[in-house]
Amino acid sequence: MEKDEKGLKVKKSDDLSEWYTQVVQKAELADYSPIKGFMVIRPNAYAIWEKIQEEFNKVLDKKKVRNAYFPLLIPDSFFKKEAKHAEGFAPELAYVEGREEGEKLALRPTSETIIYDSYSKWIRSWRDLPFKLNQWCNVIRWEVKQTKPFLRTREFLWQEGHCVFENEKDADKDMNEMIGEYQKLIGELLAVPTFIGRKSEKEKFPGAQTTMTIEAFMPDGKALQCGTSHNLGQGFAKVFNVKFLDKDEKEKYGWQTSWGFSTRLIGALIMVHGDDKGLVLPPKVAENKVVIVPILFEDSKKKVLGKAGVIAKKLKEYNCILDDREEYKPGYKFNEWEMKGIPVRVEIGPKDLEKDTVVLVRRDTGDKKVIKINDVDKEVDKALVDIQRNLFEKAKKFLDSRIDSAKDMVELNKKLKSGKIVKVYMKNDVGVEDLIKDETGGATSRIIEEVEEAGNCIKSGEKVNTLGYISKSY
Amino acid sequence: MEKDEKGLKVKKSDDLSEWYTQVVQKAELADYSPIKGFMVIRPNAYAIWEKIQEEFNKVLDKKKVRNAYFPLLIPDSFFKKEAKHAEGFAPELAYVEGREEGEKLALRPTSETIIYDSYSKWIRSWRDLPFKLNQWCNVIRWEVKQTKPFLRTREFLWQEGHCVFENEKDADKDMNEMIGEYQKLIGELLAVPTFIGRKSEKEKFPGAQTTMTIEAFMPDGKALQCGTSHNLGQGFAKVFNVKFLDKDEKEKYGWQTSWGFSTRLIGALIMVHGDDKGLVLPPKVAENKVVIVPILFEDSKKKVLGKAGVIAKKLKEYNCILDDREEYKPGYKFNEWEMKGIPVRVEIGPKDLEKDTVVLVRRDTGDKKVIKINDVDKEVDKALVDIQRNLFEKAKKFLDSRIDSAKDMVELNKKLKSGKIVKVYMKNDVGVEDLIKDETGGATSRIIEEVEEAGNCIKSGEKVNTLGYISKSY
Repeated sequence: MEKDEKGLKVKKSDDLSEWYTQVVQKAELADYSPIKGFMVIRPNAYAIWEKIQEEFNKVLDKKKVRNAYFPLLIPDSFFKKEAKHAEGFAPELAYVEGREEGEKLALRPTSETIIYDSYSKWIRSWRDLPFKLNQWCNVIRWEVKQTKPFLRTREFLWQEGHCVFENEKDADKDMNEMIGEYQKLIGELLAVPTFIGRKSEKEKFPGAQTTMTIEAFMPDGKALQCGTSHNLGQGFAKVFNVKFLDKDEKEKYGWQTSWGFSTRLIGALIMVHGDDKGLVLPPKVAENKVVIVPILFEDSKKKVLGKAGVIAKKLKEYNCILDDREEYKPGYKFNEWEMKGIPVRVEIGPKDLEKDTVVLVRRDTGDKKVIKINDVDKEVDKALVDIQRNLFEKAKKFLDSRIDSAKDMVELNKKLKSGKIVKVYMKNDVGVEDLIKDETGGATSRIIEEVEEAGNCIKSGEKVNTLGYISKSY
Repeated sequence: MEKDEKGLKVKKSDDLSEWYTQVVQKAELADYSPIKGFMVIRPNAYAIWEKIQEEFNKVLDKKKVRNAYFPLLIPDSFFKKEAKHAEGFAPELAYVEGREEGEKLALRPTSETIIYDSYSKWIRSWRDLPFKLNQWCNVIRWEVKQTKPFLRTREFLWQEGHCVFENEKDADKDMNEMIGEYQKLIGELLAVPTFIGRKSEKEKFPGAQTTMTIEAFMPDGKALQCGTSHNLGQGFAKVFNVKFLDKDEKEKYGWQTSWGFSTRLIGALIMVHGDDKGLVLPPKVAENKVVIVPILFEDSKKKVLGKAGVIAKKLKEYNCILDDREEYKPGYKFNEWEMKGIPVRVEIGPKDLEKDTVVLVRRDTGDKKVIKINDVDKEVDKALVDIQRNLFEKAKKFLDSRIDSAKDMVELNKKLKSGKIVKVYMKNDVGVEDLIKDETGGATSRIIEEVEEAGNCIKSGEKVNTLGYISKSY
């Protein structure tokens, strides 16, 4: 087969970072912006984001959360009201140059503060609760770390849900339900398996009482946080005055949650499923699920194209592409559509025509199968279902195989180096975790787990009932 | 009927501006932000925007325009490349405070410059054309004029389409088709009639060769620009180097178009259809098309609620609200749903139950009709279709009745004062139009029309073949 000069110049297993950069460019998912740390989301990736939006809007509808839109610019003083929130976000805030007298305006890195300022005006009585809004928007966080398209950029797109409840129990329930919805959505739609759990004191959201997270696991042994859900307690309610008159005629502060995921999910999908030929799209998220490549020779061209057209019509519901370009050879087209991750390829040439067959090629395994033209829709459907399942299972098996445990720092470091997530007894304490981070060259707990059987903290030696799942992360 | 303290404190015909402000607040469409000139788009209005997005995404799909996302921040130097574009947008640009060395970064007021920088990298050959992208995003324009929710704010949401063609003819065709699509969408979905035409030299988009516009007409005699479509010629292509290798192996500059509409459309809808009871939603854009208000008395409550529930199920496809709150009286509920603009109200009380009827009330006319419960879905459907049609026709009649003409400045001013759009012979010249603006206290041409029969320019006296449609505008 002819070698496509547009192909990847590096293997995924050799240099994941360079491989990722090339896939993002060559599958036309994103491009660099003239401004450092910003990216252009190209249509191939934006279509994935739209599919995620569509599916999550159904969840929002089910949960009776309505969409709204709050301003991009937030008064600086709002950030100063909740001390931990302020401290957490200060390093990454960008401001608008003073256009007029008055206070500094920050570009939103997250919208708790400006949204709860509105909530304090809108919420009056227990009858207004639960109060649930979501917004889809862009946010700006002036990252100092190395940026990478989708995984870490100074601007990204996300959704942020913000709810107010009467009591702690309802807030906790919402936090847990929403992180569950995230795991389900990402697993079912993007075929990306995640593990779920609570963040440590060090890693939780600035201003939250509790943070739940779902984390995916990348081939290089780093975890990728894919979404978080926070029980904010009453901290924001108290400083933003989010109060309601309860049934007992007493004024009480609301209990709040917030939860979000971002375009980072597209990065997870690329990393988890991609291979040496490029992107691999899970069928459910693929805009075009099938591409038909007719094998054209001068004498049989018309016939083959005619039949390819008939098949394309049969596969219309899969938003099938018929690649009838005559200026490119089949091999070039195979490479191009493989790079772009189209789940199923259907090849049809003059010999197939004689036998009334086509060749069906799966993007995930490369398996080829000769099938009757009559069965093409049935076979394509079967293949798509199987690809979706296979991608998830393969990734799940990988994730499961990488969770290990360690008794001491030496073992922890050894296992981290071999690309594992390592469970260790760890005190849920910022100081202890800082030490672990230092001594592992940057690994932190992804989640913290309460266990019945106590053990000695790997760092402080104290008896604790908490396991930290330690790994490096994006 | 009891008087609702939540009602409007002013009549639409007495003080349109104050009426508008109250409807926006009381129908919970928008709220003020702590920052001057910014607004919160509340769920009732955001749902309208989502419906507009849904419908326009279908148009984009038909036109083979794909969605993408470009960065919020644009290097200042990009704006300086196209002289007229720079001059037009300079007064409204906001910048990010220098986070690091290097040039100033502007918050996008529109994205021609940063998008065409990418196009210069992506477009190579005539095979890449037409090249068509759209983005849905927020933009920032630091307005100095008085702001008003939806109609003029410093941040708003919009879509901007950006296309590249091989030649001028194709670009012109796209410009005209898209302004036609806008008129159709806004007419059919929002029931807002508009007139279509070309902008004058004074009023066209900074950097465009030709600008087409659709303009709606407000009850106070001001026009509201609802969307524009530009043939940008090759001006941007030349400064951003958007070139393609043509079939003749020669490198040529592309011909470009851009077109956009914004959340301002929600303002048009409020202004055009609203009345002294509040918002009036055209059924096609109403999230909830029907509200059922049961008339509850202690002895018949259970029966009435039971039947109301049955009717609600029958009307499920209209996303019907069953207002079974017991703490409010029917009159209060009537007022509330009228304020929010729900197109159809169904009332059911114990007397109706006996006769197997309900009362159907139209929001647009207030007309009441007793109908058989068996016919409720049919009758609701008929009413919704009729309301949609009626709202458009009423507004169209008003618009048509307000287009007039004048021979001289005295007549022009007199007719402007009576709330008309006035056709006058006008030279298509910035200087002439500036004079007209001065002498009318701010009126400008909304569109300019080429006519066969020449006449004397109202200001310069020169023989011209162009009519200006003069009015004040938002």
